[in-house]
Formats: sequence, structure tokens, C-alpha cells
Amino acid sequence: MSRGPVHRPSVREGGSSSLRDKCGVAAVLGHPEAANLVYLALYALQHRGQESAGIVTSDGPRLRRYAGMGNVADVFTPEILEDLIGTLAIGHVRYGTSGWSTVDNAQPLRMTHQRGPMALAHNGNLVNALTLRDRLQKKGSIFRTTSDTEVIFHLVAHSSQQTLEDALAEALNQVEGAFSLVVADRERVIAVRDPRGFRPLSLGRLPDGQPVVASETCAFDLIGARFERDVAPGEMLVLGPHGEERSFRPFAEMKPQPCLFEYVYFSRPDSFVFGRSVGEVRRALGRELAREAPVDADLVVPVPDSGVPAAIGYSRESGLPFDHGLVRNHYVGRTFIEPAQTIRHFGVKIKLNPVRSIIAGRRIVLVDDSLVRGTTMAKIVHMVREAGALSIHVRISCPPTISPCYYGIDTPTKAELIGSHKSVDEIRTFIEADSLAYLSREGMCRAAGTEPERFCTSCWTGDYPVPPTDSPEIRDEMRLLDESVEELRAPLSITRENKKR
Amino acid sequence: MSRGPVHRPSVREGGSSSLRDKCGVAAVLGHPEAANLVYLALYALQHRGQESAGIVTSDGPRLRRYAGMGNVADVFTPEILEDLIGTLAIGHVRYGTSGWSTVDNAQPLRMTHQRGPMALAHNGNLVNALTLRDRLQKKGSIFRTTSDTEVIFHLVAHSSQQTLEDALAEALNQVEGAFSLVVADRERVIAVRDPRGFRPLSLGRLPDGQPVVASETCAFDLIGARFERDVAPGEMLVLGPHGEERSFRPFAEMKPQPCLFEYVYFSRPDSFVFGRSVGEVRRALGRELAREAPVDADLVVPVPDSGVPAAIGYSRESGLPFDHGLVRNHYVGRTFIEPAQTIRHFGVKIKLNPVRSIIAGRRIVLVDDSLVRGTTMAKIVHMVREAGALSIHVRISCPPTISPCYYGIDTPTKAELIGSHKSVDEIRTFIEADSLAYLSREGMCRAAGTEPERFCTSCWTGDYPVPPTDSPEIRDEMRLLDESVEELRAPLSITRENKKR
Amino acid sequence: MSRGPVHRPSVREGGSSSLRDKCGVAAVLGHPEAANLVYLALYALQHRGQESAGIVTSDGPRLRRYAGMGNVADVFTPEILEDLIGTLAIGHVRYGTSGWSTVDNAQPLRMTHQRGPMALAHNGNLVNALTLRDRLQKKGSIFRTTSDTEVIFHLVAHSSQQTLEDALAEALNQVEGAFSLVVADRERVIAVRDPRGFRPLSLGRLPDGQPVVASETCAFDLIGARFERDVAPGEMLVLGPHGEERSFRPFAEMKPQPCLFEYVYFSRPDSFVFGRSVGEVRRALGRELAREAPVDADLVVPVPDSGVPAAIGYSRESGLPFDHGLVRNHYVGRTFIEPAQTIRHFGVKIKLNPVRSIIAGRRIVLVDDSLVRGTTMAKIVHMVREAGALSIHVRISCPPTISPCYYGIDTPTKAELIGSHKSVDEIRTFIEADSLAYLSREGMCRAAGTEPERFCTSCWTGDYPVPPTDSPEIRDEMRLLDESVEELRAPLSITRENKKR
Amino acid sequence: MSRGPVHRPSVREGGSSSLRDKCGVAAVLGHPEAANLVYLALYALQHRGQESAGIVTSDGPRLRRYAGMGNVADVFTPEILEDLIGTLAIGHVRYGTSGWSTVDNAQPLRMTHQRGPMALAHNGNLVNALTLRDRLQKKGSIFRTTSDTEVIFHLVAHSSQQTLEDALAEALNQVEGAFSLVVADRERVIAVRDPRGFRPLSLGRLPDGQPVVASETCAFDLIGARFERDVAPGEMLVLGPHGEERSFRPFAEMKPQPCLFEYVYFSRPDSFVFGRSVGEVRRALGRELAREAPVDADLVVPVPDSGVPAAIGYSRESGLPFDHGLVRNHYVGRTFIEPAQTIRHFGVKIKLNPVRSIIAGRRIVLVDDSLVRGTTMAKIVHMVREAGALSIHVRISCPPTISPCYYGIDTPTKAELIGSHKSVDEIRTFIEADSLAYLSREGMCRAAGTEPERFCTSCWTGDYPVPPTDSPEIRDEMRLLDESVEELRAPLSITRENKKR
Repeated sequence: MSRGPVHRPSVREGGSSSLRDKCGVAAVLGHPEAANLVYLALYALQHRGQESAGIVTSDGPRLRRYAGMGNVADVFTPEILEDLIGTLAIGHVRYGTSGWSTVDNAQPLRMTHQRGPMALAHNGNLVNALTLRDRLQKKGSIFRTTSDTEVIFHLVAHSSQQTLEDALAEALNQVEGAFSLVVADRERVIAVRDPRGFRPLSLGRLPDGQPVVASETCAFDLIGARFERDVAPGEMLVLGPHGEERSFRPFAEMKPQPCLFEYVYFSRPDSFVFGRSVGEVRRALGRELAREAPVDADLVVPVPDSGVPAAIGYSRESGLPFDHGLVRNHYVGRTFIEPAQTIRHFGVKIKLNPVRSIIAGRRIVLVDDSLVRGTTMAKIVHMVREAGALSIHVRISCPPTISPCYYGIDTPTKAELIGSHKSVDEIRTFIEADSLAYLSREGMCRAAGTEPERFCTSCWTGDYPVPPTDSPEIRDEMRLLDESVEELRAPLSITRENKKR
Repeated sequence: MSRGPVHRPSVREGGSSSLRDKCGVAAVLGHPEAANLVYLALYALQHRGQESAGIVTSDGPRLRRYAGMGNVADVFTPEILEDLIGTLAIGHVRYGTSGWSTVDNAQPLRMTHQRGPMALAHNGNLVNALTLRDRLQKKGSIFRTTSDTEVIFHLVAHSSQQTLEDALAEALNQVEGAFSLVVADRERVIAVRDPRGFRPLSLGRLPDGQPVVASETCAFDLIGARFERDVAPGEMLVLGPHGEERSFRPFAEMKPQPCLFEYVYFSRPDSFVFGRSVGEVRRALGRELAREAPVDADLVVPVPDSGVPAAIGYSRESGLPFDHGLVRNHYVGRTFIEPAQTIRHFGVKIKLNPVRSIIAGRRIVLVDDSLVRGTTMAKIVHMVREAGALSIHVRISCPPTISPCYYGIDTPTKAELIGSHKSVDEIRTFIEADSLAYLSREGMCRAAGTEPERFCTSCWTGDYPVPPTDSPEIRDEMRLLDESVEELRAPLSITRENKKR
Repeated sequence: MSRGPVHRPSVREGGSSSLRDKCGVAAVLGHPEAANLVYLALYALQHRGQESAGIVTSDGPRLRRYAGMGNVADVFTPEILEDLIGTLAIGHVRYGTSGWSTVDNAQPLRMTHQRGPMALAHNGNLVNALTLRDRLQKKGSIFRTTSDTEVIFHLVAHSSQQTLEDALAEALNQVEGAFSLVVADRERVIAVRDPRGFRPLSLGRLPDGQPVVASETCAFDLIGARFERDVAPGEMLVLGPHGEERSFRPFAEMKPQPCLFEYVYFSRPDSFVFGRSVGEVRRALGRELAREAPVDADLVVPVPDSGVPAAIGYSRESGLPFDHGLVRNHYVGRTFIEPAQTIRHFGVKIKLNPVRSIIAGRRIVLVDDSLVRGTTMAKIVHMVREAGALSIHVRISCPPTISPCYYGIDTPTKAELIGSHKSVDEIRTFIEADSLAYLSREGMCRAAGTEPERFCTSCWTGDYPVPPTDSPEIRDEMRLLDESVEELRAPLSITRENKKR
Repeated sequence: MSRGPVHRPSVREGGSSSLRDKCGVAAVLGHPEAANLVYLALYALQHRGQESAGIVTSDGPRLRRYAGMGNVADVFTPEILEDLIGTLAIGHVRYGTSGWSTVDNAQPLRMTHQRGPMALAHNGNLVNALTLRDRLQKKGSIFRTTSDTEVIFHLVAHSSQQTLEDALAEALNQVEGAFSLVVADRERVIAVRDPRGFRPLSLGRLPDGQPVVASETCAFDLIGARFERDVAPGEMLVLGPHGEERSFRPFAEMKPQPCLFEYVYFSRPDSFVFGRSVGEVRRALGRELAREAPVDADLVVPVPDSGVPAAIGYSRESGLPFDHGLVRNHYVGRTFIEPAQTIRHFGVKIKLNPVRSIIAGRRIVLVDDSLVRGTTMAKIVHMVREAGALSIHVRISCPPTISPCYYGIDTPTKAELIGSHKSVDEIRTFIEADSLAYLSREGMCRAAGTEPERFCTSCWTGDYPVPPTDSPEIRDEMRLLDESVEELRAPLSITRENKKR
């Protein structure tokens, strides 16, 4: 019997989107249970990366590291957390955009250079990492991973600056792109955000005053910390072992351009990001959408869970009732084996099932946050129609995505982005909806309470604030070198009493 | 460093409830990918039991079995499914109420008696299993598991009836309680529902006409099968290898009393159960609740996900806006290690986080489907209040739960049920809500479109249609015997960093 | 690239033999570290079975069991031993002859019947197990394993005798064949040897007087116990919790016929078995062989390790020098992957390598204990000749093996035994030796210091003291039933790079 | 219950010695099953290191690597070998002397520098590795392992030489100490031996002419290769993909001083090392010992297995009979748990048991190859005496070991070497033997057929041909840095259905 295809549902919760954020970072200093608190912070940041998770702690003499593939709750056991001793901890969850998806690339990276051991967790993406890597390699450096982040270590190792913060500042002035970092040596944590401030990074306080750093404020809520302020674009914040905190501005001043997509999709609705409530912005996106693209219909149905806040906004503004007409299966595992006799819309059905009693005989407004390849939405539309919808009006709470992101979001290639080569009406035809509308860039910015130029909107416009430096040639060359080695991993299944016969 | 408590969040999706259904069953006959289809059906029934999952197939000469602890998607790999060859398959997901939570008790159970091999998957609970077990043991029977289900095998093994269906009918006439069963021998599937019909069981058809049996119809949706009819209370349906189907009524006629809680909480909203759409009934429960217990407030907020349908019903009937003021974390793992310096409301926070921008400054109607111990709801109320709610009005879409279930639902003891010893006002005080109201039994039945006496409502009334037979003495005696042996399990290793390619 | 064959070297240490003993058993009573001592005893008995290992302990109320596939040292970890609490322990190592090689058949078996829990470890083989099993199954018994041993449990469960020892005696009077057993209930150990006394069983004392039972006395040496006496053929020895010891003779008197092969090959040379030193008997076998089959040669070389004692005896009697001309590799693992371009004599080379500087230019007497299929010896002879031997004279320290064993030794079928269908000269031609001689039955018995009729020599004569009862028909029928079920095993992962500290 | 000590028997086969060789290396070029052949070669070299095993292959574009902790047969599965594609392979077995015993230090190491990927397997030990490492680190190099071998990579990476062989020669001219290396890039294998030639390295041919390199010739026997010649001290042999072979002498000429201990203990008796048969030399050592230290006794008994060849030599020269009076247990696992009530001589008993019938009443000459700490021999003497020996005369086939080895043998510190601080008579008293004699340095060299100054005998004399360069200060400094990081490994035991309580 030949086997049907194996489905690997995107682990991001629901939605038709296939955009993924690169990473989340967290740090705690001065707390006897630093590893535990960072572990919980990572758990709250899990939506920012499910590929790998890692924590490094320091107890003064020694930096301990543990990282593994998978979700935070799968990677860490009580025993491992108990071994991660020390009052300083930094952590990372990852969805990899550059470098292979292997445990070797799992962060925080940790290496020893002449100044001692150093660990680093990075959210964002560097656009000149390969150029720098090539240069360092020619000078005798040996790289350990295929991660863009590793160049920072080698630049620090080669720096002749006296202190770690100066060496780090020197190194970061050579890299280009997006970086929200937490760095640890034996006794300090350094939090840095690139001068554009592409990705978020916030500072909080534990009840006893110890500092906490995290990509999003929802991490503070879980561990009982209080949000204090964002780490500013271009700021380097050095947190010392005795409560000392110093703030530097080691970079040339630039206009901040944080990522607007954090509001649309990536951040959790219960986080405050770039100074606003994400959930509130998302509802406002739905309201703007209702104003820009109203429709005569009976019911507003979100694509769960990502479309829910915008759908509620749409419902309120339009006055149309809201209902959960698509039910999510909450037990989605990593893989599903489809029978060889293929089941229609299997990949979507495994995650979503329409509730016929809600949908049948009604005109449906189907709200989602974004539309990337369009294939999933096409299946959802088909499934909703089969459940008896009279008509289906798709509403997307941002403009068409037309260009890949270079700053830390895992987007498909331009060719795969349906918005890059089809008109809105062609997309409507492709997904077989009765109507389709996207929110305008202006409407989106109104909802975010800001002007377009104060954010990075390059995925909708193709205008990049920091152009990518690494040439296609160097990409090919470095890829060849990186691909020249392969670490085989032990097979998962070796057993003494295996399936017999 | 001493370790804080390890939290094991209930894997049931969200909610403040701690009631759990025992099991779900499924069967497919006459399809070359029977195991795959049953695997998917179990996946759709995952909400009915996350403790263990198992499948037995037959290829004619041989019954193959695989079962393990955990979710369907974790237990089964493509390799294992490929080894489960045969055109007949039955499957089971379990949350255990009687018997220990070990892999030995994982169903389907499969044993060989004088008529050959037989496998059986059971949803429900027997109330005279220990009495029968004691009797059989005294006659020389050796039991293998601590499951109530095993007595059925021994009764069949001792029967002098010629055919399996007659032996099974003889056996099932000796047991008392709730049973929705699928049974397999080498070539047939037998589906049986006890005469009261406590638990659901439905018959469907694959596109090419092969029969499918499942606890809920949502399993049919996923595998592309069509719902045909319920297996009737007291019916034994014998499905043969060449498409033959015979229906018997081997039991004395009784008044059917299906479990009303299937509507309130257990079944999936996209299932049709006992002839009605579960989602529709649940919205109707919310509407009845709004009529019976209106309140002057600003916003209806569900306890996700179980409270959502009733909250939508409440919102529509009351005209108050609906919003997701509590955000669920979708990456809840099996265990969480709380720091020794305890975090307030940790057990709830790990699953739910209030969205301050939605809640602050508003009067909140908090809707959930049931209230068992009250402790979780107390934490939620506290957390919502800390997020700035002006007042909190808790509304529960069923009456107070006062008595344990003997028919296959995992309820706490009577002493643990807050409804059994506190008045509604005392409960309100306990959970520190501004007001609290339960739906009445009459309102609940109105929403379900039926009269109270046509359902089993014993958990709200304490009136049991089939009184439990096993005496406390025999429980003690058998427990002593069962506890007299212990199988130590090898600590299995799980590799996290598999070989990649 | 296609893969060459996977070799699974016989785990028995070296030699050209492929005969394997069924099992070893051990028991300790009245010692706070009973499990540890039994574990060590099993380790000393490892040569009697490497397929599975298991221990059952009792702490009074509860019988704990742990068993797994593989060697004792692989199966048991410190953690598992620590969990096996209690002052009573029985254990078992197995090489299976009847029943499948699965962990379900691993002993000690342990089941609960009406008198409570009971565990049993069995060395030997029953010749009417299937007939009894068929009869019990028809009376309603459900079997759990495919082991011949399980019938004893069901016979005990059906017995109406009052005490366990009477029920056990009744049960054992119904079984036929070879059994050296240790049985445990909550507080007692019962050691029994069948009336023929086919397999050994000895009683020892720990320094503080607690009784120890083991298949061979080498187990006593390791744990610091003193050998006291053999359990006599037909004796049932009941050891109680307060030091009480009672000896019964529940069987009809018969002429004891212990297995002579225990001397030739199975038992360890440092054991005393059936009243004599095994090593001494083995050297005497070599001396008799030198007298019966002298040869003009330069050097006596053993096939290591099993041929060493006889080779030393041969060397002493003949006056020819002895040397280790074949070197064993001590790191033989479970499997070896041969390149597709086959290596000559790979299967033997992986275990043995000739030392050219010893062998070249010399006439070699090659001594081994037995010759089963002849294929391995053929390869050894070829390899030794390639290393430069002038001539090779094979000497075997027992007669040709012509018949399978029914009493607990894993022999190939009669057709596979080269001695059953070829003359000595034909065998010599097959293995390409310059000469070949076997020790005579008389010589063998002289070396063992006894007359032939006082031992079971059926593998060399075909005369069986207890004829096999189970008919081919019932074998087929029961095999069909046993094969009708299959438990798929999860592919367990084994981590190689454990956490280090 | 508290647990007794956990014993980890030395995995080296038997003997009283605790000296361990560092490593074995192997390489195959130009064969479609290169990985398989290297795997078998490593298996034959297993006695040279049981801590880790690894293989790197190249298929031209890519170097694949797999390495793990444990024995060759445990580390490699058929699946892994199948993934190691390519016609070039190098391999390594390790017992670590410098660097921690972690999988990160497992060889072959493989890193990518500016010239592309390179892999290297090293037998021997560098005496200035830390000094070089410190210097490189100060220039910006980041080290990955704690192995002395890694400096070679960084020296090559920093070299400005054009070709790999020139860069490697430049690098190796900077390191001091012992190195027998096999190095691979994408298409070539380079075999190098340091100018002193401390450790062996031989060249062989497969039947079709492809080159094979291995630490010992026994590896050639297993894979059907023919021994051609030793790689000469100071030779660099470059093997190309099209059969080209070039030999260089990149080092200043020095007097070769191969390690005499390879004859006494390390190499396998069936190997030809430094031009002679190891087994023959070892028997000659026994004969010299019999001449130098005769004794009036009844029986020569070896400490198995390492003492066997010398004991046979002693027996022949003395005319005293030889016998295996100590039986080895062949199933020694990795750990044994001793009961809390300690068993006498447990650590030795677990491996060896005296055969009373051979020993009792006799005067015994006990022969072993070396005596390091003396504690094991003391236990053996005691055990043999308890078995009834009338007197025990210990004979050691080399002089007293008084100084640690710096060239690749794992010796205890000087303080732990009993020969460094006790006279022979004091040692005799310590081990409680009736007499004790060591072979003289002259006798040893006579047996090896050479003069003392043609070998390195520093462990017996304390005269080091290459003095250690790394100062204690730099050792401390680098150790601090190395110890500053710790990679936690996943615990072996994570399970869903773990031992329940």
C-alpha cells in the first residue's frame, strides 16, 4: 500500500497566512530563578517561533546552554531547567529565515572568545552577513553555524576594544539590517535594538525591581513583571549584576521605521508594541476595512484565530452579526498522513471545519489578516461554500503583500506572493470568492494611528529602508561552502524491542 | 535550588471546566486504508480523550494493534500506520475514569479467546464491572488490565453461544451502565449502544458506500464521509465483510436517556448529536441564559474556547457587544514549571491572558459552560478584575453540577463539586464575582428542544437512571488486588535533534 | 547504493556452535537489596540467555516487575533497580525456544489470580503446553503470551487447592517436560525442579544465612554467597519470609536424567553443576579426546572461548603445545553491515582473526566443543589455512549432534544438524579439514565420571526420556491463533549523547 | 533504600591495567563503500578507544559526518552508514586524554575554512596545543571544542600557503608532540606521522588496489586488504582521487622513537606494528620474563585477556603448565550497581572469577602485562588466594611504570603510579603476593629485537624525547576558559508513560 502525502500543518495558530516571524528573545537578570522566568517568557513568545528554543544562563564562572528543536514546552523539562543554574538568563525562540533549520543554528548562540564566554539571542535579520562572513573567513576565522548571527561573534572576537560593550558596538556598526538582541557574558546582559528599530524589544521589571527584557510585553504579564518602556531604536542598554543600568547610543542617528506587520499579524493581541495595544489596532483595522469595503451580507466570520480581532472590528462597524462559523481543531500535531485516495481540502480540513448550522443559507463576510499565496484561502472559500453559504465576501485587513521581507520575517519568494503578480480581481477569481477587498495602506496607518512613512511597510510597497548588501554571487558562494558539510543526526528510532518480524 | 510546582494544564481546550469525557470510538470497514481513516476520525474526536490512542486493524488472518499514551498525532507515525494493514479498523481515544492511566489500559483492548481474536473499543462506563470481575476471577479467569471493559472479553470467552454476536449479546446483557462500543473480529465490525443510549454513536458512509462508525459526526466531515443515522439505543449493528449489515435489538426495551452534557460541553460544536446541531444548541443555551439572567453591562466575554458559543448567544439575545477579552495561548504543553517564588494565578495565566485594552473600564459579562470546582473561575475573575474591569457578571450555561457521573464522564467526587455544598450566592462569594447566574434545567431543555425526562441529567439532579452496582467493599477488595502488581516502565529516551536532510 | 547483508553475530561468546540454552533463573529472599543481588546473579548467568532479562520483587503488598529485551546490564538501570523495592526477588534471563521473541514473553511472568499475585521464572521447556493451552482456552481462559510457561498460571488459577504450593503441585503434575522454576507470591519463594532434573538448580546462602537460588553456582560466587546443595530432581522447596524452609516431593519418583550438554557447552567453567566442576569435566573431555583421537601435529589451538578448556586438556594429554592462534574481537556488537562487495568469511572474521605468526608453517589441532551446522567451522578452517597452516585437524569434545532438544535448548531442526545426515568423513570433507574426530559417548561419560544412562543424551542419540506430547496438528492450530494478533511496538529512540555533568 | 556505588568497569578487555590508548584512525579512498570499510576498520581498532567513534565521508561536493559516544557497533546503524555516501572516508575511535569526554570532541573533527571543508582524525597528543590555542584566540579565533587537535584547523585556516598540503605542513611544523593523522578534504586523503613516529600508522591495499590507511594492520585483515608498508616517521602521504600518491618529508629529520608500549599492551596481538608481529613480541616478553624471574610453581595463569600471550611464553620457557584459572565474564556492561552492603572485590569479581578446581592446592604464577595503580592486582591476588592457591607469584612483562605519557596514552598522574613511589618489594607487600618480578628494560628490548634507545620508553624512565611545552599556568588559564561553558544534553529518560507510582 503506498502512502498518501504527509501534511505538516503550519504550527502558527490557524489563519490562511504563511508568513512567519523570525524570533523572540527574552532576558532576566538578578533573579535566583532566572532560567525558569525566561522559560516562561519564551512560552509567552512561542507564537514568534516554534522551530527551536534555547536558554543560556550564567552563574558567574560558567555559561550553561540548552537548546533543542521544537516548542518551548517540549524542549525544556524540569530537570533541564534545574540544571540551568544562575541568576542571569537569556532565551530565544526561533523560526529560521537564514541558515538551515538545525539544532546547531538554535539560539542563543554561545561562543568563547579572548574576553571569555558570550551568548547572544537575535530577533531580526542581517542583510550583509554573508559579505562579512566571507571577509572574516579569508582572515582565518572558522564558522560554526550557518546563522547570520554568528558574524557578530567573530567581529567581537576580532575587535581590539577593551570592553565587551565597546567591542559589541564596534561589531554592530559593521552589520546592516534588523537586530533586536539580548547578549550575555558572565555577569551582564546587554539589550540592543538596531537604529531603525525594525523589531520590538521592551524592558520590564519584576516585583522586586530586577530587569526583564522581552520581544513583547505579553511575556511580562505571564511572569508577573511590569512593562516599563521600549528599548529605543539605536539604544544599547547595559544591565549589570548589582542593579547598574547604563544606556548608550552607539549608532549614527536614523529615522526609526518599526515593522507595521507586527500590528497586522505577528505580535500577540494582548501585547503593547511600539507604544500601542496590538488588539486595539487590530480591531481598528477591521473597522477601517468595514468603512472602505462594506458589503450587504448576513454574518461576519473570521478565519480563526488570526482573523478574529479584525472580524470583530468589521462586525461592530458594519453592524453585521459576528460568529465563529469555522471551528479549529486544537490538537493539531506536527504531521498528518493523508490517505492515498486524497480527501478534498485535506490540508485545511485538518485544522478547520465549517459549522453548517451557522453558515448554511447565509451571505458570509470572511475576514483574515493577510493573504500570501492564496491557496489556503481558496480551499477555505470552497469549504465554506460547500457548507451552504449563499455568497462569500473575503476581506483582508492589510494591503496585498507584494515583496519579501529582509528584516526578519519569513516570507515566500516574490514569485510565490500572489499579490506580486495578480490584480485584486484576478486573486478574487483564483480564490473563487464573490468579492474580495484589501485594506488600503492609508486605512492601515489610520488604524495604527500614524503616518505611513513612520513605519516599515516594504512588504506592501517594495521600498526597503536598508537595501540588502549581500550579492547573489556571494550568496551562491557561501551557500556552496555551507552546503559542503552535513552533520548526520542519530535516527529517532532505534530500539531493542522494535516492531518485530 | 528547589523547584516550584509543576503544572499540568488540563489539555481540554481552555475553559474553566475540569469535566472530561471518557472516550471516543471509530470504525471503518471495507476500505484499503482503513487505519488511516480511523486515525483521522480519532484526530477529529481528540477532544473526547487525550490520554491514550489506539487502533486495531484486521487483514483477515491477523489483528494488528498499536496503542500509546498521548494525542493521536503523537502516538501514530506514518510507519506505524503503514504497518496497520487491513481493510477493517477500529480505534479509540481515551480519558480514563476507571482503571489506571497506563498504556496497558489503552484501548482498543484486544484478546484471543476460543473463537479467535477480538478487539473492542468502549465509550462509557460499566457500573457492575468489579462485581463481575470478582466472580470471573473466582472461576479461574486471569485479568490483564484494570479496565472495566475487560470483563466483556471474559464474559464472551466463557459464553457457550455459537456466534460472536450471540456471545457478545449474552455478555452485554450481564453488564450494567453505559456502553457505546465498536467490536472487531477478523472480518466484521459490530457497533452496539446500550439500551439507555447514554453516549452517542453514529453511522456514516464513505463516498463509495463503505460504513463508518464514530462517536461524533465531526469525524465524518474530516474523512469525507456522509452522516447516515445514529446507532439507536439498544441496537446491535453487525457489519460484514461483503457489505452485509444486520441490526438486532438484543436488550430489553428501556426509555432512552442520552447525556445532555454532550450538548453543554463535550461534543464538538460542528457535530450533530442525538439529532441536533451541537453549536446551535449551545447558542440557544446562551440565549436562554440572557433571558433568564440579564444584566446591565458593557461587554460579553467568553471563557475561551468552551464558553464562546453560549457567549455569542448571550450577546445576540441581550444586544450587548461580544469580544475576545481573554487570549488563549495556543502552545500549551504538557507541563510547566512554576518558579518557587510563586506567580499569582499561574495555572490560569499559562493558558489565558486578559486583553487590558478591551476589558479596562468596562462592565463584563463572563460566560462559561460549566463550573465544577470553582477554583479556576475564581482566578479568572481575579485576573479580569486586575485588568481593569469595573464589574464582572459570571453566567453559566447549565445548572449547578451537584453529583458525579457514573456513565463515562470524569467528574470529581461529590465533595469537590462546589455546586453540591454551596448555594449560588456562596459560590458567587467564593469566585468574587459581582453577580453569578446559572441556566435553569428547564431553560437548558428548552434550548435543547426537549423535555427534561428525555435526557440523563443526573449530574445536575443526582437521580441516576441505572444505579451503581459495585459496592464499596468490592471496590476496596479489587483495588487491593489490582494494586498488588506494578509494571515498571523503561524510561524511554526521546531524541530532539533528529537527523535532518 | 545498495546495502550489503547485515550480520547478527551470535551473542554467545565465540565458538562455532549455534546451540543456545534457554534460560537462567535466580531468587533471593529476606535481603533488603534483593533486586540488586538477583540482578548480579542474572549477570553471572548471562551466558544462559541474552534475549531478555527481568526481575520481580515483592515488598509484601505489591509485586513489582521490570523486564526488557537485551542483556542484563542494558535492561536495568540504577533507577529501575531502586524502584524494585522489597526483600524478595526472582529473576530470569532468556533465550526463547517456544513462543515469540517479544518483550511480552520476557520472564518472570507475573499474573494475578484469585489467590493474589504470583510471579514465575522458568528454565526448561514443556512438551504438552499447547495441548493444555487448547483445553484451558476452550474452558474460557484468555492467554496473554505465547510462552509455554503461561499454562502453569492458568492451571494454578483453576486449581481448587487451598494453598499456593498445593495448587502449584497440582498444576505441575499436569505439565510434562523440563522445568527448573522459581515462583514468588507476596512473601514466599518456591523453587522446583522437574522429576527428571533436566536443568540445574542450586541453593546457596548469603553470609547472613538468607537463601539464594540460581541455575548455576557461579551466580553465588559473584554475590558472595556460599553453595549449599542442588535442589533435587522432583523437589519443591518452599522458602518462607521468616527463614522457614520446607521440602516436598510432590511428583511420582523417576530416574533423574540431567542434561549432559550442560557440561560440554552450556554451563560456565567456574560453576559446579550436578555435583562436579564444569571446568574440570571439560578438561577431562579434552584429555579423553586426545586419547581417542591423537594426531601428529605441532600446536593445539582452541576455537575461542568455548573450545579453550578442552584444548588445554588435549594439549596436556597429547604433550603438544597449546596457543591462542585465533584472536577474538571483544567488542562484538549486535549487528554488522557487510559491504555489498562481500568480504570472504565475513561472518567469522568479525569475531575471530588468526594470528599468522603463530599458525604459519605449523600443523594445527583445532579444538571446539561441538559442531552444529558445520558452516562456521568450514570458514574457520579456511581462514586458518589461509594464515599458513600446513594441516588442520579438527577435534570435537562430544559426539555428533543428531537430534533436536525438547527440554530447553535451542537447537536447529534435525535437517539443519549436519551430524544427522552426514557421516563423519562427509563432514570432514564439508569443512575441508585434514582430519576430523568426535569424542565418543563413552569417552564423554568417562570424562563426566558417570554412566551414559544417568544423563539425558538425547541430542546425540535421539532417545527421549519424556516424549513430546503436543501433536503437529495442535501446534499448527495454536500457532494460527497466536499469529492472529500482533502488537506493534513504538520505535523507541535511544539518545547517544546524554547530558553530561 | 540508599544505593551502593555504581561500578564502571574499564571497557578495555580485562587485565589489571588501567592504561588506555588514545585513539585509532582509518581511511579509505576510491571505493564506493568507503564508509562501510572504514566502519569495519574502526571495529577492528575498537581496542584503541571505546569512548566515541566517528566517520566523515566525501562525495565530492560535500563532507558528511556522523559521530557519537560509545562503541563503533553502537554508534553506527545501517541507516547512518547508508547516509554516509562517497568514495572517500576517514574514521576515528577515541579514548580522550586531553579535552573533555563529550560528543563535541568526538573525531574526526570537521570544519570549513577559506579553502573549503576539511576533516581530520588524530592519534597521539600535542604538547604545545594550549600555548598555540591561547595565541590564536588572542588573534580573534573562536574555538569550538576542547580538543588539542582543533589547533591544527586554526593554524591551517590562518596559513597563507596556496595548497592544503602546504598549509597543513606549515601548521604541523608549529605543533609539537605525537600525531598520526588522516586528513580529508573534498577529494583527497593525507596521512601524516610525526617525525618521532610515536604512534603507528600503516598503508594497505584493497583487492582492487585502492589505498587504505589504519593505525594497525588487524584492520586490513578484516576488510580483506593487504598490508603494504608503514607510513614512515615524518612522512606526509597525499592520496589523490585518481590513484595518484605523493610522499613528502615536510619536517626536519629526527631520530624515530616509536612507543614500545604498543608491543607490551596496546596493539592487538594479530597486528604487525613497527615491523614486527605483536603476538610474537609478547610471547618473547613472557619467555624473557621466565628467564629473568623463574619460580618453583605448579601452574602459569594469565590475567585475561591481556596477560595471555606473555603467560604462554612464560609457560613454554619455564616448562610449567598453562591454564585459564581466571574466567572472564564476556557480558560486561557499562555500569554495575553494587549493593549497599558491599561485596568483597566487587569491581574485579564483576569481570573475573577464579576456577577453584584449577587453582586450589597449587602454586600459581600470575602473569600480566603491566601494573599501574596496583589496586586491581591486589584484589586479584586476594581472590586467587581465597580460591585455594598455595602461593602466588606475580610476573609483569615490562618494567615498573613510573612516569605519565605525553604522547597519546591515558596514564594516571605520577602520584597514582604505584611504581613511581614504591620499591618492587613494597609493591609486592601491597598486592600481598608471595613474590613479584618485573621484566627489565633490557629484557623487554631483547624481546622486541631492538636497542632501548630506538624506542620511546619514557613511561618507564621519565626521559621524554619531546618535552611538554604547555606550562601549568596556561593549562589553568585555558581550563578556566574551557570550563566557562557547558552544553547541557537532553536527559536520556523522557517518556509519556513513564514508571507510574
